[in-house]
Amino acid sequence: MKERGLVDDVVKGPLSPTAGGTAALRPVGVDGATITGGFWAERLAANAAVSIPQGWDQLHRAGNVGNLERAAGGGTGEAVGDVFADSDVYKWLEAVAWEIARTGDEALLERQRELTRLVAAAQAEDGYLDSVVQLRGIARYSELGWTHELYCAGHLVQAAVAQRRGTGDTALLDVAVRLADHLVATFGPDGSHELDGHPEIETALVELYRETGTRAYLDLAGWFVDARGRGTVAAYGRDSTYFSDRVPVREATTVEGHAVRAVYLAEGAADVAIETGEDELLAAVARQFAAMVGTKQYVTGGLGARWEGEAFGDPYELPSDRAYAESCAAIGGLQWAHRMLVATGDERYADQVERMLLNGMLPGVSLAGGEFFYVNALQVRNGAEPDDQRNPVNGRLGWFSTACCPPNIMRTLSSLGAYVATTGVDGDSLQVHQYVQGTVRGAGLVLDVETDFPRDGRVLVTVRSAPEGEAELGLRVPGWASGATLDGEPVEPGLARRRRLWSAGDRLELVLPTAPRLIAADDRIDGIRDSVAIAAGPLVFAVEQVDLPVGAQVDDLHLDVDAPLRLGGSDAALAAPVVLASGWVHRHVERPEPYAALGGGEDDGVEREPVPIRAVPYFAWANRGADAMRVWIPAG
Amino acid sequence: MKERGLVDDVVKGPLSPTAGGTAALRPVGVDGATITGGFWAERLAANAAVSIPQGWDQLHRAGNVGNLERAAGGGTGEAVGDVFADSDVYKWLEAVAWEIARTGDEALLERQRELTRLVAAAQAEDGYLDSVVQLRGIARYSELGWTHELYCAGHLVQAAVAQRRGTGDTALLDVAVRLADHLVATFGPDGSHELDGHPEIETALVELYRETGTRAYLDLAGWFVDARGRGTVAAYGRDSTYFSDRVPVREATTVEGHAVRAVYLAEGAADVAIETGEDELLAAVARQFAAMVGTKQYVTGGLGARWEGEAFGDPYELPSDRAYAESCAAIGGLQWAHRMLVATGDERYADQVERMLLNGMLPGVSLAGGEFFYVNALQVRNGAEPDDQRNPVNGRLGWFSTACCPPNIMRTLSSLGAYVATTGVDGDSLQVHQYVQGTVRGAGLVLDVETDFPRDGRVLVTVRSAPEGEAELGLRVPGWASGATLDGEPVEPGLARRRRLWSAGDRLELVLPTAPRLIAADDRIDGIRDSVAIAAGPLVFAVEQVDLPVGAQVDDLHLDVDAPLRLGGSDAALAAPVVLASGWVHRHVERPEPYAALGGGEDDGVEREPVPIRAVPYFAWANRGADAMRVWIPAG
Repeated sequence: MKERGLVDDVVKGPLSPTAGGTAALRPVGVDGATITGGFWAERLAANAAVSIPQGWDQLHRAGNVGNLERAAGGGTGEAVGDVFADSDVYKWLEAVAWEIARTGDEALLERQRELTRLVAAAQAEDGYLDSVVQLRGIARYSELGWTHELYCAGHLVQAAVAQRRGTGDTALLDVAVRLADHLVATFGPDGSHELDGHPEIETALVELYRETGTRAYLDLAGWFVDARGRGTVAAYGRDSTYFSDRVPVREATTVEGHAVRAVYLAEGAADVAIETGEDELLAAVARQFAAMVGTKQYVTGGLGARWEGEAFGDPYELPSDRAYAESCAAIGGLQWAHRMLVATGDERYADQVERMLLNGMLPGVSLAGGEFFYVNALQVRNGAEPDDQRNPVNGRLGWFSTACCPPNIMRTLSSLGAYVATTGVDGDSLQVHQYVQGTVRGAGLVLDVETDFPRDGRVLVTVRSAPEGEAELGLRVPGWASGATLDGEPVEPGLARRRRLWSAGDRLELVLPTAPRLIAADDRIDGIRDSVAIAAGPLVFAVEQVDLPVGAQVDDLHLDVDAPLRLGGSDAALAAPVVLASGWVHRHVERPEPYAALGGGEDDGVEREPVPIRAVPYFAWANRGADAMRVWIPAG
Repeated sequence: MKERGLVDDVVKGPLSPTAGGTAALRPVGVDGATITGGFWAERLAANAAVSIPQGWDQLHRAGNVGNLERAAGGGTGEAVGDVFADSDVYKWLEAVAWEIARTGDEALLERQRELTRLVAAAQAEDGYLDSVVQLRGIARYSELGWTHELYCAGHLVQAAVAQRRGTGDTALLDVAVRLADHLVATFGPDGSHELDGHPEIETALVELYRETGTRAYLDLAGWFVDARGRGTVAAYGRDSTYFSDRVPVREATTVEGHAVRAVYLAEGAADVAIETGEDELLAAVARQFAAMVGTKQYVTGGLGARWEGEAFGDPYELPSDRAYAESCAAIGGLQWAHRMLVATGDERYADQVERMLLNGMLPGVSLAGGEFFYVNALQVRNGAEPDDQRNPVNGRLGWFSTACCPPNIMRTLSSLGAYVATTGVDGDSLQVHQYVQGTVRGAGLVLDVETDFPRDGRVLVTVRSAPEGEAELGLRVPGWASGATLDGEPVEPGLARRRRLWSAGDRLELVLPTAPRLIAADDRIDGIRDSVAIAAGPLVFAVEQVDLPVGAQVDDLHLDVDAPLRLGGSDAALAAPVVLASGWVHRHVERPEPYAALGGGEDDGVEREPVPIRAVPYFAWANRGADAMRVWIPAG
């Protein structure tokens, strides 16, 4: 393989830091965890059976594949869809690569090869590739603020890396290397100083460096990271904040602007820092991550508080109703968190992966796998009017004219195993970060894990085989899991470590308390003042109109914070636990305006009636029709 | 005049219903009220001395005048600025016409004539006029969803009507009539069925009918009103909701979509109903107005809850921080309210004119007159980042690339006198709706009014001259004025009427209580739950960072609702009353995330310290620098 410049010891997963980097942990890849049952197996089955086949159909129907076909034929003229149409194909190809690794699906392999041939045929002689720009006859990189040429290139590179790692096939990697070489020849300190309006190339080029050993890819990624933040990107009349181009990455103290752009850039910067060992750069993105979690993240892990510019808001600006919380932003956020975990070994980042997977990304796809949310509101009012395709009052849709989210969800689910565990860099420790039913491998340990987590908090780990010497097994105790026990002993949030000689048959029982609880918020988040959210384990819950008695409206709901919460068993249609609570419906008398003198009779307008409350996991909402819903409920 | 088709008995103001219509009241026009001192005289003086001259400069500097010059020269090529650039010139011309009527300013007359000649010269042979479309060579009306050709025509018509009514000059009216005749020949049931993306032509054509007696203008206005709501408008990828084109006006039950478009359309529909006497149409816009006030209006009168699409939100979706509340929307809202008042005689509409004038429009211009807000947030957080020119954290700006608001404010202030009073249709009653220091005339009565309202609630009315027979004098008692007295006797909100023989020297003393009070909101408005706003008389107040002690942050403020409120005298820099209150600063301990288990120590993160609170009228905020501010303050 050496003549191809491929690295032999890469991990079979989307993230494979080199031994020369400074990562604290080493991912195990998608085959480090085989998911055989329980909660996640159901989600992966829907992804495989419905989402991915539907992606193939939609990419043909929406014209993305047609663009590549016409470009491959050397044609010019109309390109269909968004300027970044190619990237949806690449994300689907990445999903397929991990899916083949997971299941060995022969039919998918055929489709992968067909599309790969098409992509290769569309590539220009000199390595350039962007079917939309080629077809429309736009001068290459002349309008890089909006053409997304490097964004598309980044997704191609990630798909190519996935294809090689997941299936062993290098056909797409040949295309990616030619394109990357073309980029290295075109951009950088001695080349063009233009920047893509949408980060993504940075993390991709670092991964291609990890895959090929070609240092120039890492250097170019680092250059892209450091060239940003100087106000050079311009497009759509947007300002540099929108493009994550107002403040240099090393100086930034928070996230701002377009949420997906911001987290993709930070993820790429974290990758660069892992490989170059630049503490200052890692500290910068750690600081930004902390500011995001501290002031700009929804309780669901959702990122992006503003529809205008699909953007982060000011600190504590987190309205439930107009939450943007794009599915892609949660994915970028969890990819960033995963890199921070690997870089630092700090389990709090794994808590964030869990939050954004379960409550940030998963609501973006229906339980059956065929419909998607682009925007993930935390509140939909009774009688809300849909205003465009992204408005959740319509429920999920099968596809979007801007279809970034569906294939992004597909690739994340297909590669889920890669987020489950890591090994220590010394090779004698295994950390289990996410709990899935199945087999987890690493550091010579093979573990059988029995759990229906997150629907149940019991995790039974049985050693199937063990290394000869001592090894450390670490199990994440999530930050929310106060009262957790390991083999009956209390364990604190963080990593519960057990170092010893292991033998086949050794068992560990982790019990994570999943009794329902109420969550309160900082009173500076205006939109949810004096409100509470229901949670159980890592899951955030929502109340849907369909679960209220006739005549009670979600808009009028108040929750009795002194009444007990109970787990109500599993909802058959949702295959998910429900939480039962109590509250009141405030029945409002119609008044000419919603403002009145304080104490001047404003309470006259309200009658309170007790009401039983049934809440379902937020990820499962809008699977029984879409109507009014809210995560945060006014207290009392 | 008859050969011009001009009507002789029009009122010298922007609204002059015909005697053949069904209006309950008749406006007195701009010379029905001469404003000689007090609060409003200061605002009008700033408008005259600073805003209007600056408008002239900016229209030249920004290129609006240049567009007309090049079009007048028969040129083609680049047009500068927004597609609706002409409309800013017309709104400025309208302001100038009313200003000349008010002050007789000779220098303005020169500028008016110069610009009028230019506009006339730019008009095409057949009456068509839109300098941007002409210069850019766009086919007329071919992209009417976004070209604003009829919107611009509407503002031209209004300016022309104002010029004739305010100055007697008919030069611009000649242009407007030729353009309107061209529109009549082009659009309508037997012509083009295209609709302008932005309503405005409807109200303008009705006023031109009132000015000229040409029925075809009223008919076309009615046709435009009824053609809307059928999903025919398309532009910018926006849906029909944005364009007020989803539901026919007669069927609509609320306002939705782009706020300025929605209220301009409703205003035009009200005008049509007044002239045609269609009860069903008037009832439809009354129903929409009630829904707007009941569920979609800020306590400031601000309209539009979403930046995305500059739009109304769902009912009770009224976030303070991301309030759009465009200055133009408040102006459209008060014009609509004024028409509803005239149509129905219901003083509650005059309350709305007052609210939107003082708290909706007036914050849009600095006290000195030289800077403007496009967007009027009700909350700006500490450390908020500006995201574009419309973000109030920057403070007001001298002009905007989209400069609709500044000249809209100018024309409203210049014509303020027209909103002060009406007469009954029988001619023997005078209703005073807005209180200004000066002289009010109507129904044979001439009244000297002494007041510093809204800075003080005492209104002393002295009859200077009176008709021979009995006449009714009505004084509005605002809805907020509980405890009001007229000559010492309690009066209820509505119109306090006195019918008698009047003699010079007769006096009435109305006392409107302006002691500060707290306002609470419907608990369905999530963004301000458990918060209060301070008001005094018609004024809504705001707390600015500059008025807090060092170390106290607006974001951390809570108000003690049990502590007394006191008027704190006038702030010298603002020439406005202040209100003193008490509260606490919540000092937050920094925590990794803003969510925590309820009762699980979330109160540990907060220490309360007493703090004195000083609030200034919302219209006066951001006149001592712009920093954090909020209208609604969490209680307790």
